[in-house]
Amino acid sequence: MREKLFIAIDNNYDEIISLRRHLHENPELSFEEVETPKLIADYHRNLGHEVREHVGGRGVVAILKGNKPGKTVALRADFDALPIQDEKDVPYKSKIPGAMHACGHDGHSASLLGLAKSLNSIKDQLFGKIIFIHQHAEELAPGGAIAMIEDGCLDGVDYIFGTHLWATEPLGKIQYKSGPIMAAADRFEITIQGQGGHGAKPHETKDSIVIGSQIVLALQQIVSRRVSPMDAAVISVGSFEAKNAFNVIADSVKIVGTARSFNEKVQDLLENEIQRVVKGICLAGDVTGTVQYKRGYPALVNHHDEAIQVAALAEDIPGVIEVEDMIPQMGGEDFAYYLHHVKGAFFFTGAKNPTWEKAYPHHHPKFDIDENALLISAKLLGDLALYYTSEM
Amino acid sequence: MREKLFIAIDNNYDEIISLRRHLHENPELSFEEVETPKLIADYHRNLGHEVREHVGGRGVVAILKGNKPGKTVALRADFDALPIQDEKDVPYKSKIPGAMHACGHDGHSASLLGLAKSLNSIKDQLFGKIIFIHQHAEELAPGGAIAMIEDGCLDGVDYIFGTHLWATEPLGKIQYKSGPIMAAADRFEITIQGQGGHGAKPHETKDSIVIGSQIVLALQQIVSRRVSPMDAAVISVGSFEAKNAFNVIADSVKIVGTARSFNEKVQDLLENEIQRVVKGICLAGDVTGTVQYKRGYPALVNHHDEAIQVAALAEDIPGVIEVEDMIPQMGGEDFAYYLHHVKGAFFFTGAKNPTWEKAYPHHHPKFDIDENALLISAKLLGDLALYYTSEM
Amino acid sequence: MREKLFIAIDNNYDEIISLRRHLHENPELSFEEVETPKLIADYHRNLGHEVREHVGGRGVVAILKGNKPGKTVALRADFDALPIQDEKDVPYKSKIPGAMHACGHDGHSASLLGLAKSLNSIKDQLFGKIIFIHQHAEELAPGGAIAMIEDGCLDGVDYIFGTHLWATEPLGKIQYKSGPIMAAADRFEITIQGQGGHGAKPHETKDSIVIGSQIVLALQQIVSRRVSPMDAAVISVGSFEAKNAFNVIADSVKIVGTARSFNEKVQDLLENEIQRVVKGICLAGDVTGTVQYKRGYPALVNHHDEAIQVAALAEDIPGVIEVEDMIPQMGGEDFAYYLHHVKGAFFFTGAKNPTWEKAYPHHHPKFDIDENALLISAKLLGDLALYYTSEM
Amino acid sequence: MREKLFIAIDNNYDEIISLRRHLHENPELSFEEVETPKLIADYHRNLGHEVREHVGGRGVVAILKGNKPGKTVALRADFDALPIQDEKDVPYKSKIPGAMHACGHDGHSASLLGLAKSLNSIKDQLFGKIIFIHQHAEELAPGGAIAMIEDGCLDGVDYIFGTHLWATEPLGKIQYKSGPIMAAADRFEITIQGQGGHGAKPHETKDSIVIGSQIVLALQQIVSRRVSPMDAAVISVGSFEAKNAFNVIADSVKIVGTARSFNEKVQDLLENEIQRVVKGICLAGDVTGTVQYKRGYPALVNHHDEAIQVAALAEDIPGVIEVEDMIPQMGGEDFAYYLHHVKGAFFFTGAKNPTWEKAYPHHHPKFDIDENALLISAKLLGDLALYYTSEM
Repeated sequence: MREKLFIAIDNNYDEIISLRRHLHENPELSFEEVETPKLIADYHRNLGHEVREHVGGRGVVAILKGNKPGKTVALRADFDALPIQDEKDVPYKSKIPGAMHACGHDGHSASLLGLAKSLNSIKDQLFGKIIFIHQHAEELAPGGAIAMIEDGCLDGVDYIFGTHLWATEPLGKIQYKSGPIMAAADRFEITIQGQGGHGAKPHETKDSIVIGSQIVLALQQIVSRRVSPMDAAVISVGSFEAKNAFNVIADSVKIVGTARSFNEKVQDLLENEIQRVVKGICLAGDVTGTVQYKRGYPALVNHHDEAIQVAALAEDIPGVIEVEDMIPQMGGEDFAYYLHHVKGAFFFTGAKNPTWEKAYPHHHPKFDIDENALLISAKLLGDLALYYTSEM
Repeated sequence: MREKLFIAIDNNYDEIISLRRHLHENPELSFEEVETPKLIADYHRNLGHEVREHVGGRGVVAILKGNKPGKTVALRADFDALPIQDEKDVPYKSKIPGAMHACGHDGHSASLLGLAKSLNSIKDQLFGKIIFIHQHAEELAPGGAIAMIEDGCLDGVDYIFGTHLWATEPLGKIQYKSGPIMAAADRFEITIQGQGGHGAKPHETKDSIVIGSQIVLALQQIVSRRVSPMDAAVISVGSFEAKNAFNVIADSVKIVGTARSFNEKVQDLLENEIQRVVKGICLAGDVTGTVQYKRGYPALVNHHDEAIQVAALAEDIPGVIEVEDMIPQMGGEDFAYYLHHVKGAFFFTGAKNPTWEKAYPHHHPKFDIDENALLISAKLLGDLALYYTSEM
Repeated sequence: MREKLFIAIDNNYDEIISLRRHLHENPELSFEEVETPKLIADYHRNLGHEVREHVGGRGVVAILKGNKPGKTVALRADFDALPIQDEKDVPYKSKIPGAMHACGHDGHSASLLGLAKSLNSIKDQLFGKIIFIHQHAEELAPGGAIAMIEDGCLDGVDYIFGTHLWATEPLGKIQYKSGPIMAAADRFEITIQGQGGHGAKPHETKDSIVIGSQIVLALQQIVSRRVSPMDAAVISVGSFEAKNAFNVIADSVKIVGTARSFNEKVQDLLENEIQRVVKGICLAGDVTGTVQYKRGYPALVNHHDEAIQVAALAEDIPGVIEVEDMIPQMGGEDFAYYLHHVKGAFFFTGAKNPTWEKAYPHHHPKFDIDENALLISAKLLGDLALYYTSEM
Repeated sequence: MREKLFIAIDNNYDEIISLRRHLHENPELSFEEVETPKLIADYHRNLGHEVREHVGGRGVVAILKGNKPGKTVALRADFDALPIQDEKDVPYKSKIPGAMHACGHDGHSASLLGLAKSLNSIKDQLFGKIIFIHQHAEELAPGGAIAMIEDGCLDGVDYIFGTHLWATEPLGKIQYKSGPIMAAADRFEITIQGQGGHGAKPHETKDSIVIGSQIVLALQQIVSRRVSPMDAAVISVGSFEAKNAFNVIADSVKIVGTARSFNEKVQDLLENEIQRVVKGICLAGDVTGTVQYKRGYPALVNHHDEAIQVAALAEDIPGVIEVEDMIPQMGGEDFAYYLHHVKGAFFFTGAKNPTWEKAYPHHHPKFDIDENALLISAKLLGDLALYYTSEM
């Protein structure tokens, strides 16, 4: 049956590419998607799938029922674009100024639509149900996943799988990982309110730049001393704002940064310790300090058996050259929320064209993918659907 | 004779005020003075004084010769304005947009002109020579003093005196000090060139904010450890620029600040130690650091006997209520250069109107002075001229 | 065959315990072992094994040849004790003042001897060769392993296995890990030579405590900024010596600590960065700094297939209750060197008696083990020998 | 009359030297003085002076009444020695192991006794009363001054004067100063209680060395930022105790240091800021910190008129070559307390022999003085007594 599916996918190649390029030319930003979900919903309706629109806001859920009893497997693709100006020189370049599919979500969607059509073509032989979750707004926290889950997109679902095309990994490579595969990515903003004054009279002021510098250094100790060496964690200050004349003492300082971790315990620790450090150092410096700590997506933690199964099936997917037990990524992904509710796994599909010397990274104005990767992602997700719907 | 002088000055009150207000309405910025020196030169010429214009650029020097042999005493007033928009609501408000006499130099000049006329009226009884040094560009380093000295303004001068009207000290107060009375005020700019990157991958970057923070803290040790506790010194960072997105690591940081001291030995130490600290910390952090250290005016150091004499004479000046041995000021003043060549002293003349609850500080858009202070400064400078020209 | 082996081991229980207790009562410190290797060599000789003594100094190597052709598998046990006073209240307490088997090496040796006798009893059915490596001086770098390897103990060896009894893990638990399982444990000693003097005159001194404090904080940045978040690393300062009178400024400071890592690249990085930090901070502080960096054992990195095989066989060993994919330990072990030369793996054998509420940790004066663990370690090592000697 | 006094003093030279050497050979430590006060009391009694012993513990007060009415002037000399082993090679070397007059108090006492005898010889011509205050325990806070004052030693006194022989200033030099001349010298002891543990597991500990290092650096900011640049202040950490094995994390750290200032406002500021810094940094580090702050003697602040008079009279003392307006000393002296109650001044009497290339500093095991300085100190104190007793 999987061979039939793979042939069907290959036969749909032109349509998949055509879909991807149409989406690429017409990107829509997170929480502003209108035409994209409409196109997706129409496509599924044309296939005869049961379709729900505006799920959790702008998401689309389509259902393909197999002929035989079985499990329910969800496959998820996101479809939002980024506020980046497309600088590529290709025929399918973005037509929308200041918006661009610079992270491959167009590919995710086109690949899943092509897979839907291919699975539909063999639906007589399918077990259970396959749910296509087309999610909006992955790029912008709080993201679309939570709202779609609350709106029922996982109701009755036994397993869920998803993938990310990855432009800097070679075509033919599948990366998987049991356990944490993508980080929790939080944002913090520290404001120090000292007391400004003349640079020649420090004793009449409370020097917020000095206190801010102490805080930057004290934050280093959280990773070096408070987090277990066996746990991965990062605290980076990206911005330190205190621009003034040379001969004044700064009234206030704003420090903004990110904290990354792979489990909630470490995430809690980072937040608590940042709070503590700011409170203590500000007390020592007799200034006022506030911390706004905003949690991003939680760590994306694959379920063990499903992650191993991804790797096992990947070995036999046509076009797959290498299956890698990857080093976790420090970026965030709201697929994490789905795995809080049902079993499943997320994996990466290499999409770097073999002839490119160097690929532009995600979110780069010249970002692009090797479209052949869309066949591979469709086949592996399809194979997972076949495997898990037919599970006893 | 001094009584005659004081009466003459009092009689010139209206003209002094009129001169001051004319200058106040027509401020000229440092190194851009044209009409002001012309007015001053004409005034002295009308009195019959020997006048040199364009001294050291835009300065004016006028000479009043006494009838009897004696010493030569110089009296100095600066006449430049500041690039500040006048926000006062007074009839004599600045007519020039973006320029304002916000530091009282208009008063210095008017007071000295009024004194010149008054001394001229008693010239038959005068000893020696009195040199009126009207200096341009005090507000902007390198200032006008050096150039005027190089152009000979101090030739043959035995003593020099000058004053600053001070708006935040009460009318009737004279502040003097033997030794250092105003600081050397230097500016430094530190640039740290690290290597930017993603906030989640610190090991692929060189974090310039962290290094910058270390430098800010290490600078504290210069004053706390390297400078003698008996020497006054300040190092203040006024600006720390590293504004970026929260999830990047800053490529570079710019730190700008000021270093203040009261003698050249300490000034040298501060500069050398700042250089050393930046070099060492950047080596430790594997980044590139550069320091631009720009010296401002040197410390203004009064000669002992002349400073004491200022205090002694001040006690008897009409209108003087208090003579204070002041705490040195951390600001800079290029009168410092004159005292490198001849004996003399600088003092402060209180100019806060008794009815003001609070005076606007110098360089403030609403800065103003009590014009009665111009009589006091004229009388004390005049008395010093009488005293030192007649010295045996 | 493995059942026969397990029965033989069980039958040797009393002798194994007797051997262990004899060794426990007669501990010998690292590089001072005399009676222990003699006892071991005699034991093997009595079994008819080929024996080499004084291998690499004080090590013993014994060979048991099977009847059938096959691979050569080495099993290693260390036999040195620690300079700790035994404070246990047991009949087999150490008789040697100030020396104690406080890390279980007595158990390693007794278990391996019992296993040797048991294997010998079924030698007709054995394939290949089994090499018993009894190593001296594991506790004291540079350890005995390097010298024994250089002296040929691994000649002709195809695989090597070893275990550590672990008193704080429950009896019945086997811990394994593919890849790094124990850390490289280095030692560094930083000396800062400043210039002492009176506490009231800091400017005449170079304050080594302040510089030392800067170094301690700068070391934190190595882990937080220079090491990849995906790599485990620790830098800990254990000792900061600068004891003086309250009113002096310290002439010098000694800072001693440890650096831990799991691969040579990180180990190199830690050493280089510590050197750089000390050099840079001392330059900034105008003092002299030196670093003595002494590498301990390298990280112990298990070979993947052999580690997985340890886990697979462990599942079926009588008495094994749990097989855990463990979190790597931060301690060091010179078994690491053997794995640089031949394939193999190291694992941990739980030895905490189920009735103990809390076990004393290794190197504690009251440290002890549940002797039943010696059967488990013997059986798993024996099973690995059977498996790999008979490998095709 | 002063000429007569000076001649009398010169005539007593041998006895003064003999007294000084006797005291030098028989030093007694602070609060342990027995023979010294006895000798002093007997000496005064033999002169016929009214004597009080055990004043404030071990002090001696003697009164010489003049023939004519006048003011009462106190002259003070301290007489305690230091716990230092005398390493000089001179005939009058200390006979007491571990005790030595290494600060010149023997000279102070002998000089004052010689002066007493000399004044006594001209008592018919004396005005008022002269009180000789021989104070115990200057070297050890809380010192003897407070207790002697409480015990009435200043009752009826109008003026008080004292001097310190100073071995590193040349014979013939008198140093005076109006206002602060010696610092307040306080002691602080900071204890940081973290949580110890293994160096490889920082997250299970609270690293007190890291927190201690932060505190040392944060203390630097008190002087650099919180104290006015015009005020002198020092905070020096002399001792940082955390000696441990290299692979542990320190449980606790002890930091001991000194804080120096010249007025109570700054002294209060230093204490409060040290408290605040420790509290805040310990909060940030989640450890417990305590500060014991022990005030030493307050700043010694000379009264203006009396200090100027010291300088004026000094100019005419035989043997005085230079009178210097000195830079204040950072050391402490409990003469400070007397000046809280009555007018007076303290000065320094140079005691470095002209032939010495370099003098050993005070508290050095080879410390010594040029005994001719005892004549100068006696003459200047005597002249002050004559001047102020006869004041109208």
